[in-house]
Amino acid sequence: MIVLGVDPGAATTGYGVVAREGGGAVSLVECGVIRTDASDALPERLRAIYDGIVEVIDRCRPDVVAVEGIFYGRNVRTTVVLGHARGAILLAASLRELPVTEYSPAEVKSAIVGTGRATKEQVQYMVQRLLRLKTPPRPTDAADGVAVALTHCYAAALPTVREPLRFSAAVLGGRRTEDRS
Amino acid sequence: MIVLGVDPGAATTGYGVVAREGGGAVSLVECGVIRTDASDALPERLRAIYDGIVEVIDRCRPDVVAVEGIFYGRNVRTTVVLGHARGAILLAASLRELPVTEYSPAEVKSAIVGTGRATKEQVQYMVQRLLRLKTPPRPTDAADGVAVALTHCYAAALPTVREPLRFSAAVLGGRRTEDRS
Repeated sequence: MIVLGVDPGAATTGYGVVAREGGGAVSLVECGVIRTDASDALPERLRAIYDGIVEVIDRCRPDVVAVEGIFYGRNVRTTVVLGHARGAILLAASLRELPVTEYSPAEVKSAIVGTGRATKEQVQYMVQRLLRLKTPPRPTDAADGVAVALTHCYAAALPTVREPLRFSAAVLGGRRTEDRS
Repeated sequence: MIVLGVDPGAATTGYGVVAREGGGAVSLVECGVIRTDASDALPERLRAIYDGIVEVIDRCRPDVVAVEGIFYGRNVRTTVVLGHARGAILLAASLRELPVTEYSPAEVKSAIVGTGRATKEQVQYMVQRLLRLKTPPRPTDAADGVAVALTHCYAAALPTVREPLRFSAAVLGGRRTEDRS
């Protein structure tokens, strides 16, 4: 199974592509960032994000796209612009007929480090260890994308696989409907 | 000039296509709504919005797309989901190489009725009058899309044409950089 993990951002979107073998072993296929120019207007920035994600999809042929959900603690306007960026990413996956799963920031930290309150550094360190890399993926946003992909690898390995598509509304609505036992 | 006006919504996106003659006369080409199924996941809903807008663009061949900006008074989560929907619309316009202009809800009301505090009913009434229609466009969301298109027709007729693309970030950031004299 090939998983594309995405950590959306209007300025920098991080992504990571991870392969999971039948036995559960995970390996890094590639990772990187899609940067947009802050002096460009929003439609052009969304297009850059969309084009970047489509390029990765067409190159790596993932089976599923895992996207980080929105943390609502920030500035509202920043969060709404982030919503636009996430829209472009979800749309890219949908237009390529790929299932999309969403994980909240706390779920990603919890899956990778074991606690939803883990620091960015802890997440990076664990991403490096889990994938047996010599250094953590750089830049940081790329490591965040890899962490989302790994989260899906571990979630998919659980006996109760989460419903891939309905979860979207659940994350955004702050409600959880899936059985996580 | 053919203008496609869009009033984005996660559940119902209204649109209106208006033609403006060289002399300034405006006429309605078509209007309607794109509805999405609330039981579908967000990626599918975004795709329905995207597909709907692309269909209208390909049928009516507008020269420009005018999109209503976000009013921040609502529930944050609703606003963020709306951001995703707007992202799909801005992306559709950008992928079709069309310039995008954004107008805040108050700017639309102001352009159509003369006051930023106009009611929905007043906007509908004026849309009907300005386009010499027998009844206001239905459903209401379609009339809202038409109002955005008309706003662009009037704004474009002003001596200082607003910068079409940079305005996007300005509306979202709550800052205004363009000269409105």
